[in-house]
Amino acid sequence: MDYIPSKLLSNAVDQFSRLPGIGKKTALRLVLDIIKRDENSVENFASSLTNLKKNIHNCKICGNLSDEEVCTICGNPQRKQSIICIVENIRDVIAIEQTGTYKGTYHILGGLISPVDGIGPSDLNIEELKSRIEENEVEELIFALSANMEGDTTCFYLSRLFSKKVGKISQIARGVAFGGDLEYTDEVTLARSLETRTTYNAE
Amino acid sequence: MDYIPSKLLSNAVDQFSRLPGIGKKTALRLVLDIIKRDENSVENFASSLTNLKKNIHNCKICGNLSDEEVCTICGNPQRKQSIICIVENIRDVIAIEQTGTYKGTYHILGGLISPVDGIGPSDLNIEELKSRIEENEVEELIFALSANMEGDTTCFYLSRLFSKKVGKISQIARGVAFGGDLEYTDEVTLARSLETRTTYNAE
Repeated sequence: MDYIPSKLLSNAVDQFSRLPGIGKKTALRLVLDIIKRDENSVENFASSLTNLKKNIHNCKICGNLSDEEVCTICGNPQRKQSIICIVENIRDVIAIEQTGTYKGTYHILGGLISPVDGIGPSDLNIEELKSRIEENEVEELIFALSANMEGDTTCFYLSRLFSKKVGKISQIARGVAFGGDLEYTDEVTLARSLETRTTYNAE
Repeated sequence: MDYIPSKLLSNAVDQFSRLPGIGKKTALRLVLDIIKRDENSVENFASSLTNLKKNIHNCKICGNLSDEEVCTICGNPQRKQSIICIVENIRDVIAIEQTGTYKGTYHILGGLISPVDGIGPSDLNIEELKSRIEENEVEELIFALSANMEGDTTCFYLSRLFSKKVGKISQIARGVAFGGDLEYTDEVTLARSLETRTTYNAE
């Protein structure tokens, strides 16, 4: 997009098009929508971003985003603090929280070990996990990481590090999705779900 | 998306998800990207929006967005001020400018006449067009409006209004797109492009 009639407009479009997945055309559509709003609403939009950046914390226990020093999950006495689910990022926390069934806490690594990308254990939020495990009685660590090489490497590394220090280490189940057609399931998933089959319970 | 770990975060996500075509999940992805940036970059983003809203003008001649009172097209002595291309909105101006071939000026209506939606001529930027035509010698009006009922109604209305006051009124050509397969062209376009066929010139 070469021609944009105004510097102010093209500056705002540039800002938007730096966001992930937003191209120049979409950015222009968003900015033209913003121009149509009243000044107050634009102020609110802008200040919601600067306030967010200035005041958001990472929970000092699990690394989750939080308004306070400790997030609403770590600070909730009804959550089992002795069960820790290890996830890669905050989107994973949100996905699991959506299910409404998990009652433990989380630990957010902020990435996965990936030698190819030069990401080692020291780049992840692992020291904090270590002190968390050393200072508290941890009953169970649950790995909820991606089912790829980086995820597997990270699981392996963490299990070597903590297997003697926690009661139990588990991993979320992999297999054919509920409602999923066998026909359309990829071979690896299908093969693995055959291997890791569970006892059928008719009750 | 029910669970979002922080008020600040959910506020920013709400703001983004009010933009057209941005759902909650996309909004979250964008906001998490913004959190990762440094404070300066977020300030720049926010101020690009507030500055835009505060300082942008509509060109007093054609209605285009502009940093000044008169836009870069109306203020350009190399553009033919006596040829006016009528478009619905600024995105259309950008699309035509991209072609790099048009040397006249524009007039932005800001919409199309649509009785169903309660949009009449008085809701559009037509008074300004009228005084533009009365105060200047206009050689040609070019209609570049959408090929639908609203576009046709608007063309009809404007041509009745101005046919005696301008040298010539034209409309951009409709037909099969360049590189377009006949097979995949819709019936209406194909039928109309047969009706409005032009003399073939082998040179």
